[in-house]
Amino acid sequence: MGGIEEILAVKEMIQGMAREAKLSARQLRTARRSEKDAALDFMAENILARKEEIVKTNAEDVTLARKKGLSPAMIDRLTLDQKTIGSMVAGLREVAALPDPVGEVSGMWKRPNGLQVGQVRIPLGVIGFIYESRPNVTVDAAALCLKSGNAVLLKGGSEAISSNLILNELLAAALRKANLPEKSIQVIPSTDREAVGILLDLDDYVDIIIPRGGEDLIRFVAENSRIPVLKHYKGVCHVYVDEFADVEMARKICFNAKVQRPGVCNAIETMLVHKKVAPLFLPEMIREFSNAGVEIRACEESAKLIPGLKRAEEGDWPAEFLDLILAVRIVENMDEALDHIERYGSNHTEAIVTDNYERSQQFLERVDASVVLVNASTRFNDGFELGLGAEIGINTAKLHAYGPMSLRELTITKFIVFGSGQVRT
Amino acid sequence: MGGIEEILAVKEMIQGMAREAKLSARQLRTARRSEKDAALDFMAENILARKEEIVKTNAEDVTLARKKGLSPAMIDRLTLDQKTIGSMVAGLREVAALPDPVGEVSGMWKRPNGLQVGQVRIPLGVIGFIYESRPNVTVDAAALCLKSGNAVLLKGGSEAISSNLILNELLAAALRKANLPEKSIQVIPSTDREAVGILLDLDDYVDIIIPRGGEDLIRFVAENSRIPVLKHYKGVCHVYVDEFADVEMARKICFNAKVQRPGVCNAIETMLVHKKVAPLFLPEMIREFSNAGVEIRACEESAKLIPGLKRAEEGDWPAEFLDLILAVRIVENMDEALDHIERYGSNHTEAIVTDNYERSQQFLERVDASVVLVNASTRFNDGFELGLGAEIGINTAKLHAYGPMSLRELTITKFIVFGSGQVRT
Repeated sequence: MGGIEEILAVKEMIQGMAREAKLSARQLRTARRSEKDAALDFMAENILARKEEIVKTNAEDVTLARKKGLSPAMIDRLTLDQKTIGSMVAGLREVAALPDPVGEVSGMWKRPNGLQVGQVRIPLGVIGFIYESRPNVTVDAAALCLKSGNAVLLKGGSEAISSNLILNELLAAALRKANLPEKSIQVIPSTDREAVGILLDLDDYVDIIIPRGGEDLIRFVAENSRIPVLKHYKGVCHVYVDEFADVEMARKICFNAKVQRPGVCNAIETMLVHKKVAPLFLPEMIREFSNAGVEIRACEESAKLIPGLKRAEEGDWPAEFLDLILAVRIVENMDEALDHIERYGSNHTEAIVTDNYERSQQFLERVDASVVLVNASTRFNDGFELGLGAEIGINTAKLHAYGPMSLRELTITKFIVFGSGQVRT
Repeated sequence: MGGIEEILAVKEMIQGMAREAKLSARQLRTARRSEKDAALDFMAENILARKEEIVKTNAEDVTLARKKGLSPAMIDRLTLDQKTIGSMVAGLREVAALPDPVGEVSGMWKRPNGLQVGQVRIPLGVIGFIYESRPNVTVDAAALCLKSGNAVLLKGGSEAISSNLILNELLAAALRKANLPEKSIQVIPSTDREAVGILLDLDDYVDIIIPRGGEDLIRFVAENSRIPVLKHYKGVCHVYVDEFADVEMARKICFNAKVQRPGVCNAIETMLVHKKVAPLFLPEMIREFSNAGVEIRACEESAKLIPGLKRAEEGDWPAEFLDLILAVRIVENMDEALDHIERYGSNHTEAIVTDNYERSQQFLERVDASVVLVNASTRFNDGFELGLGAEIGINTAKLHAYGPMSLRELTITKFIVFGSGQVRT
């Protein structure tokens, strides 16, 4: 954490990087798609060409992390092997293949005085991206920022610092080769804790902050930033099994939403079941979950229906378990399910299973979540799965973008006006 | 302003109002356009029916403000007369006539697995609107928030408190009559300075803060809010008169942009003139400005061209004069004009006057401002003038909405997904 002089030096360094980022952003504003795609291709080539070296450098990070006693899950996320390198390269090529949102004119109309007014998509400017120790995210995030015409300052977890710096070197070389400003992508080389706070203070240079990681990191960023933040704290998602649900379909969807990947934000934490369908649906569903090792936390009514279940406590309803744990609640009617979601949901992903037309429409309209689904698993809240392409995160605040953020969400529109001498009277 | 106990009481009151606002927002989410338009019409009727009373109540505010020694300009903004009441009523009816953005589906597509994915427009939720002592803004802002399906907490200037409260009473009566939640629109009745800080802290209830007023107010709000803020600090706007400009047109546009209403944000503060056109354009232009009482602050080159002009100082280039003062600078070429705008502009409104195709295209692409115009006055950066309808403010941060914010900018899209049992593999 260093003394005051060290911190001042870090501050000066980060400010200098932010100034460079802003200058780069001005150039990127008018970069052509062909230039950006060429840079992405060169990045893929560079990474492939130097993959042994990347793995070796990453191994140093991993060795240090082991010495520090990091958990196996964290070591796993930190490790770069042939497979993760392969998917970084594939990711770069996928982003190159995506359409460029910059320059798209979303509408143009003529005013009574002859002015022609349109809206054109432009980059945001400079993005500050703050994340934990997953070096592949360095490349994924850099690719999305570059393609959308933004400069990016990357502040990754300190355990990944050597890996991030070698990747940054390869990305910068590709930018130079494509005649794009090499400071468009900059990994902040400091492992000081203060570096994040310094970055969050640079509202003269940085247009937007995107944090990705655990709830603590995101809360810290949101509470300390002078710059607008796009973030989601947690995903407390539900499936509501309606009285008119196809019970087979409901079991398949609930099972998938909980079990397929329990540690992610679009997995469900609570299953809400209409009381009329519960006797038919629940016993078999609970058996399936138990066989898969899912621990159930049951409401009073469901515990009555299926003896021996662990009882849910009040703290279970707002909990994001991120694990093979599922709260289960029987509701009197859909209104009660909607009230539960309103109270405990996190505006992330909510699904209904029903064959009733009116219920499906009501659920879609009345639920406030970034993605609302009928008869499909919550696991589809994902940029790729929804057809947007790679995503940089999911925003659960109703500002700028609600839901997965892909290339388009890293842009904004400005108005352009074609006149012929008009003045205002 | 009051002891700790009083402040705690104000805090409790505002928290209670915010809770009510959130409950109202949940109901407004599904309100039909016909209900919202009916409420707006009832509001217009109520205001017309009780206009004498409004004027009388407002006179009390004005009398107090005079005693406090407020400036004539502030007294003017505070005063409600038959004319301002007439324009409030007309504003309500105009908003009723605008299309409802809520429910609009901006796109729908099918995924390879058969999922149908769409994006539908929804309200933001609860808006905190902070403004100065213009009671007509209470009605204008309330109308836009209601029509876009949002609940609003209104914190106006303390001098307008009696006027705002009687208007709130009439708006609430209209909401009741239209069977909409009357707490959808709430004027915060406190004149405590702490009230603003309390409101900015309620991130559990309020989705977005929109401040409208002087730079100090906006800076205070932006620096103290835990809630995302949509704002612009100032409008330092330019017209660049290119070497290929039609000089007659350029004079008409520059004159309009400075003189028609100098105290507003989309008036220009600096005129940038290509050196090749300066001898032809500038002397006559300066004469016109002088005749209109505009004080010129000239760069070295323009002062050489036209003797006797007051010289500009460095502090004049980033200044928002909001007055009949204009800085003038002769530039070597368009790049120098673009550098000047990049350095001193406020991302608000920028215009070029040129008959050259390439220059017009370059200017439109390279300038980073919420509205960029060719051959038209900067005064057109306005919701009505651009064809969006009434506006609630102009946003100069590149987040959510860049430029004038009208009904659509008070909404966001969520994803809706129609499935038939799909799960993720």
